[in-house]
Amino acid sequence: MKQARPLPHYLVQRYQGWRATAFNENRSWYRRLAEGGQHPRAMVIACCDSRVHVTSIFGADTGEFFIHRNIANLVPPYLPDGQQHGTSAAVEYAVNALKVAHLVIVGHTGCGGVAGCHAMCSGHAPELEEKTSFVGRWMDILRPGYQRVSELPEADQVAELERQAVLISLENLMTFPFIRENVEAGNLSLHGVIHDIAEGTLLEYSPETDSFALVG
Amino acid sequence: MKQARPLPHYLVQRYQGWRATAFNENRSWYRRLAEGGQHPRAMVIACCDSRVHVTSIFGADTGEFFIHRNIANLVPPYLPDGQQHGTSAAVEYAVNALKVAHLVIVGHTGCGGVAGCHAMCSGHAPELEEKTSFVGRWMDILRPGYQRVSELPEADQVAELERQAVLISLENLMTFPFIRENVEAGNLSLHGVIHDIAEGTLLEYSPETDSFALVG
Amino acid sequence: MKQARPLPHYLVQRYQGWRATAFNENRSWYRRLAEGGQHPRAMVIACCDSRVHVTSIFGADTGEFFIHRNIANLVPPYLPDGQQHGTSAAVEYAVNALKVAHLVIVGHTGCGGVAGCHAMCSGHAPELEEKTSFVGRWMDILRPGYQRVSELPEADQVAELERQAVLISLENLMTFPFIRENVEAGNLSLHGVIHDIAEGTLLEYSPETDSFALVG
Amino acid sequence: MKQARPLPHYLVQRYQGWRATAFNENRSWYRRLAEGGQHPRAMVIACCDSRVHVTSIFGADTGEFFIHRNIANLVPPYLPDGQQHGTSAAVEYAVNALKVAHLVIVGHTGCGGVAGCHAMCSGHAPELEEKTSFVGRWMDILRPGYQRVSELPEADQVAELERQAVLISLENLMTFPFIRENVEAGNLSLHGVIHDIAEGTLLEYSPETDSFALVG
Repeated sequence: MKQARPLPHYLVQRYQGWRATAFNENRSWYRRLAEGGQHPRAMVIACCDSRVHVTSIFGADTGEFFIHRNIANLVPPYLPDGQQHGTSAAVEYAVNALKVAHLVIVGHTGCGGVAGCHAMCSGHAPELEEKTSFVGRWMDILRPGYQRVSELPEADQVAELERQAVLISLENLMTFPFIRENVEAGNLSLHGVIHDIAEGTLLEYSPETDSFALVG
Repeated sequence: MKQARPLPHYLVQRYQGWRATAFNENRSWYRRLAEGGQHPRAMVIACCDSRVHVTSIFGADTGEFFIHRNIANLVPPYLPDGQQHGTSAAVEYAVNALKVAHLVIVGHTGCGGVAGCHAMCSGHAPELEEKTSFVGRWMDILRPGYQRVSELPEADQVAELERQAVLISLENLMTFPFIRENVEAGNLSLHGVIHDIAEGTLLEYSPETDSFALVG
Repeated sequence: MKQARPLPHYLVQRYQGWRATAFNENRSWYRRLAEGGQHPRAMVIACCDSRVHVTSIFGADTGEFFIHRNIANLVPPYLPDGQQHGTSAAVEYAVNALKVAHLVIVGHTGCGGVAGCHAMCSGHAPELEEKTSFVGRWMDILRPGYQRVSELPEADQVAELERQAVLISLENLMTFPFIRENVEAGNLSLHGVIHDIAEGTLLEYSPETDSFALVG
Repeated sequence: MKQARPLPHYLVQRYQGWRATAFNENRSWYRRLAEGGQHPRAMVIACCDSRVHVTSIFGADTGEFFIHRNIANLVPPYLPDGQQHGTSAAVEYAVNALKVAHLVIVGHTGCGGVAGCHAMCSGHAPELEEKTSFVGRWMDILRPGYQRVSELPEADQVAELERQAVLISLENLMTFPFIRENVEAGNLSLHGVIHDIAEGTLLEYSPETDSFALVG
C-alpha cells in the first residue's frame, strides 16, 4: 500500500499529549478494557458530521458507547440479501453480541446529507439521482420521509426531514427481528433525539405527543 | 414510532453538564459552526468499538474531523451498482463535498469484528457464513486479508489480520476514482494507524518498510 | 532595496527540514488552505516575546489561530481617527472578516514591556517618557494599569501589572462597537490568560472571583 | 472585566498535553529562560494569517525568535510623533534592547490584507477608504506599492503587491535611524522572504537581481 503517508505532526503531538495525560491517568482502566473486552451499555448511531460530538455531549468514558456514524444517521430496513450492509452489521453486533441496553439515534440540525436528500427528491439535484452517486443511493433510505414532508410549507421541509431521518431509522430498526424481539422483551430500549448545533440543545421524540421536545 | 422511550436519566444529567460547561464555554464557536457549516480538515474511519476514542486521542475540537465508524474500520471496494453503500457514501461526501485533506484509517487491537472474521475464515464460525449474517457478510470485505495471514503461526494471525483491516481498506480506497485522482494530484493524503488499547500507543503503516511501527 | 541579505544558512537548513517533513506530511492540507482560504476558529493576541509559543501550548495546526503579536499583548482603546492602528486593524479583520468565535489575550510572566512600563510610570525610566520612544508611547496603553497597582507592596507590582496588561486589553476590546455587539450576541467570546514561563502553567481570569487561577 | 469566559475545553486539554510532554521534557530550559531572560537571535515580522507558522518553518525553539505579527507583515515609516505605533515599538525593542542580529520580513501568498489593499487602491472597495476602517488605514502603508504594480497586467498585480509588502517594509525599516546605523555598522542584517502556502516554498529577495527567487 504504497500511498500511505506519515501522520501530520500536529496529530502526533496531540496524541503524545493524550498519552501523557488522559491515558496515563487512566492506564489501569485501559488495561482492563483491553483484557476484559468491551461491555458498552448503549449503542449510538450518529452522523459523520464533524460538529456532532456524541462522546462529549453524553460525557462518555472509554468503553461506554458502541458508536456507529454514517451520513445522516440512517438505518436501512432489514434486508438479509447476502450483500454488504455496514449499518445492519453494526446493529446486529451491538444487540446480539454486546447486548446493549439502549440504542440511541442522534440526528442533528444543518445536516448536509438531509439537505441533499431534500434537493434530490424535490428535483433540484439530478446528479444525486445517478446510479453512481453513493450519497444519492444512501439517501434513498430517507425518500419515504420526503413524502411525509412535501406538503409542508417549503421553509419547514428540511428541518422536518431531519426529524424524519431519526424516525424512519427507528421504524427501520423495528423491522429487524432481533431488535423487535429484544424491544418487546424489555431487553432493549430505543431512543430518538435531535442535536441542535447552534443552540447546544437536545430534542427528544416522544410517542405520546408524536413530536420532538427539549430534553431536561 | 411508538416504541421510542425517554433518554435514561444519567444521559440527560450528563448532557445538562455538557451544556452548562463545554457548550457554554464554546457557544460562539458552535454558533459559527452552525451558521457557516463544517470545514473539517480530515476524515477518520474507525471502529464502532467503545474503547476507540479518536476525538480524545487526537485532541479534536468540534468541527475538525468528519468521522465514519463501522465494524472493523473497513472500506469496501468501489462498486457503483446503485445499491446502498454507507461507507462509500461517507467517503464520497468527505472527499467530493467537504474536500478533506487527510483520510485516516484507525484500526485497533482486540477488534471483535476481526476476530469474528478470523473464526469465520478458519472454519470456526459457520453461523457467520450464513447469508443472513450481517456481520459475516460485512466481514467478507476482509476475506482477502485472511489469505495473506493464513500461513503465519496461528498465534500471530489475528493481530496481523487487524493490520490487514487497515491495509485492505487503504487499498480499497484507491479503487475509488475520485480518491485516486485526489491522491495523485496531491489534494488528499491517506494514513493507516493501529491503536493499541492496552498500551495506549499508535502504530503507523509505512510503505518504506511495509510494516507498522510506533509513532512518536 | 539594496541592504537585503540572504537568509543565514541555519535557517535555510531548518526550512528545508520542515519542507521535507512537516510540509510534506501535510501537503494536501496546505494545498486546501491555499485554495480555500483560512477559517480560523480563534484569534490570539500574545507578546512578541520569544519564550511565548502559543501554537505549541495550544497544539495548533496550521489554519487554526489568527495570531497578532505585539509588545506586552496590548489592545488600545477604540479610536477611529484615521491614523494607523495595527492592532485595531488585526482585531477588526479577525472579527468582521474572519468571524472568529474566540479572542484570547495571552499575557506572560517576565514581560520586558510591562517591566519597562512600571519603570516609566514609577519615575525610573525617563528615556521612556520621551516623545520619540516608540516603546514608551506604546506602553502608555498600560498606564491606567499602573494606577491600579501602585498602592500594592512594591514586590507585587510588576506581576500585578502583567495581569493588568491582560485585563486592560480585554476592557479596551469591549470599547470596539463590533466587538461589543458580537460578544453580546453570543457570536464571540473573550478570554484572558497568563502563561507562567518558568512553571509552564496557564492562569485564567475569572470574573466570578476577579482573579487569575490555574487552569486545569 | 465581567465578559471574560473560561477557555474552551479542547484548548485546556491540549495545554495539559503540552505541559505533560514538551514542557516537561524541556523544563530546565524553560526555567533558565525565565530566570535569565530572552536572548533571541532574530526578529521575525509576519502576517497574522493562521496559515503562516514561522516557528514551524524555521524550526524555532522557545527563546529563538522575537516575533511580531500584524496584518500583511507591514512596517510603517519612521514617525516619532508621540502616537502609538505598535510595530515601531516592537522593532525598537528588538534592535535596541534585545540587539537581535537578524530582522526577517516574511510575506506570504494569498494575503487577505494585500488583496484588500489592491481592491481599495483600484477603486473596488470604497468601504476600506472610510476613515473608520482600521484595516483600510493600516493598508495605507502599502499604497505606494500599488503605484508600482498598477501598470502590470491585472492578473499579476496582487502577487506583485505581496512582494511589495515585503520590500516597502524593508525600505521603511531603513528610515529608522537605529536600524540604519546598526545595518551600516554590520550589527544587523535585513532579510525579505515570501512563503508560498500551497507549494510550501520560500522565496527570497535578492538585491543583485532585484527579484524574489526560490531558497535552497
